[in-house]
Amino acid sequence: MINLSVGIDIGGTNTAIGIIDREGKIYYQSSIPTQTREKVEDYVFDIYQEIEKGKQSIKQKFELKGIGIGAPNANYYNGTIEDAPNLRWRGTIGFSALFSKYYSVPIFLTNDANAAAIGEMVYGGAKNMKNFAVVTLGTGLGSGIVVNGKLMYGHDGFAGELGHVIVDHNGRMCNCGRQGCLETYVSATGLVRTVFDLLAHFTEPSILRDIPYSEMTAKTVADAAKNNDFIALETFKKTAEILGKSLADLTAITAHEAIFLFGGVTKAGSILFDQVEYFMNKNMLSIFNNKIKLLQSKLGENAAILGSSALVWSELE
Amino acid sequence: MINLSVGIDIGGTNTAIGIIDREGKIYYQSSIPTQTREKVEDYVFDIYQEIEKGKQSIKQKFELKGIGIGAPNANYYNGTIEDAPNLRWRGTIGFSALFSKYYSVPIFLTNDANAAAIGEMVYGGAKNMKNFAVVTLGTGLGSGIVVNGKLMYGHDGFAGELGHVIVDHNGRMCNCGRQGCLETYVSATGLVRTVFDLLAHFTEPSILRDIPYSEMTAKTVADAAKNNDFIALETFKKTAEILGKSLADLTAITAHEAIFLFGGVTKAGSILFDQVEYFMNKNMLSIFNNKIKLLQSKLGENAAILGSSALVWSELE
Repeated sequence: MINLSVGIDIGGTNTAIGIIDREGKIYYQSSIPTQTREKVEDYVFDIYQEIEKGKQSIKQKFELKGIGIGAPNANYYNGTIEDAPNLRWRGTIGFSALFSKYYSVPIFLTNDANAAAIGEMVYGGAKNMKNFAVVTLGTGLGSGIVVNGKLMYGHDGFAGELGHVIVDHNGRMCNCGRQGCLETYVSATGLVRTVFDLLAHFTEPSILRDIPYSEMTAKTVADAAKNNDFIALETFKKTAEILGKSLADLTAITAHEAIFLFGGVTKAGSILFDQVEYFMNKNMLSIFNNKIKLLQSKLGENAAILGSSALVWSELE
Repeated sequence: MINLSVGIDIGGTNTAIGIIDREGKIYYQSSIPTQTREKVEDYVFDIYQEIEKGKQSIKQKFELKGIGIGAPNANYYNGTIEDAPNLRWRGTIGFSALFSKYYSVPIFLTNDANAAAIGEMVYGGAKNMKNFAVVTLGTGLGSGIVVNGKLMYGHDGFAGELGHVIVDHNGRMCNCGRQGCLETYVSATGLVRTVFDLLAHFTEPSILRDIPYSEMTAKTVADAAKNNDFIALETFKKTAEILGKSLADLTAITAHEAIFLFGGVTKAGSILFDQVEYFMNKNMLSIFNNKIKLLQSKLGENAAILGSSALVWSELE
């Protein structure tokens, strides 16, 4: 008999569902739209039906050991999703409790960046590490920090808000209501903002001058950089400098062994990684200099469901 | 029979030695100069003799459970002191090993800020806390961060270098070879540097205009502030603003319950604390706003030996 866990990743658009073993082998996976149901109870019922469909499709004998959920604004301690700006259901939602109507196995809920960090530890590149950080570069910037083999949740469950460390107190407006947060510079959105800063600053020609703000994406910028577009290259350089400095500061606090970068923006590859590494070491306290590994996440394209399901193994072991 | 531990605090000038029980009651304490002996072996022998003198002075029956040592540049994992700039013995010194020639009880070594954090948890204001930070404001700025009830050492034992988070990349020269580290602004030394910055900037009269750089101390500035000296008040305000911002950033990462301030500079009292609290909350991510306690260390005047001896109880429990 094999042991399996369910991993659920709740995104603003889609919800990914997977049934996965301890080694990361995926036995079933599917996806449903997140926001079509008015009532959250109906949405949870949809997920339940997907899980049941998945369970029936598995021909081997298995035991379901638990359910792991990665979600925005998730409170690990309470099993709740609290005022998630990208979800239609308002207030504090007892998400784990809603699932426990259908399942008696343990249910764990955490935010997506924490799930990514746990996934890296259970299935990915951090299998033998006890102190590392995962920085997720998507629409925003998230982080999951593992200290002494355990995810750092902090007093109230909301540790790891690296995206809201302020890098410039007179800097860009942030959705959090403050100014100059790291994620206003380093994220898919931040990258786009920097393009327009630099288009205004420089006079060099650039293919990016033909694209309106509303249509600019991190992928457009990465493609332009690969074609040696001056503005695109400067954008990655500036982004890497700000991220490198912040990772050097983070290292001074947590003294981790490695930092993994994760998410859409990392598809830019060496244009991003080489420069982040350069600026990180250039700004690093000497005792850590050239000792901290900067790595790409090893979770691959199924990272979302892997991270969520990893939560189950991490908690049960 | 009572259980006792030895706490040793190695400072640049003096070494404090105490024999202390689990409740923080001090049975014996003394102090010897740190740097009179050319050979480190002779210095360790001096400490050994002090401990033995102390043991003989205790009339009750007791068992010695361990020795805790707080020292600059201490490596917890290896029991070594590595290239401490304020000590005369160069290179990597196997300090715990030197003591194990005299004692068969467990010997633990950590840096002074970590010892302060453990002391706060065992004897002080953090007895019931699992996630908190202690920030020590002395000649430099150190920190000990407790995550989930354990001190965060990081991969190599050097976590908690909050004093070397960079707050201004074009800022003041730091002894670490970089620019703009937090401790160049927030520490006894940083406070003095700020005085001279502000004496140059403002034209207001100040008693501090009569004191040369080499004679200015944090205490002089605190005394002037209590007499409403304009420059001294502005100095504390600027110091508090920089520290408050940094503590808000630290909170975003670690989501602790409380931050304790410790060390000489905190004797300034409410002139410092009220403003640090104001600027911390002003710059705080909303989910943490007005939720993080800013507290004065409760270890009192014997903090150094209490912190070191607390290491023993913390490790054995």
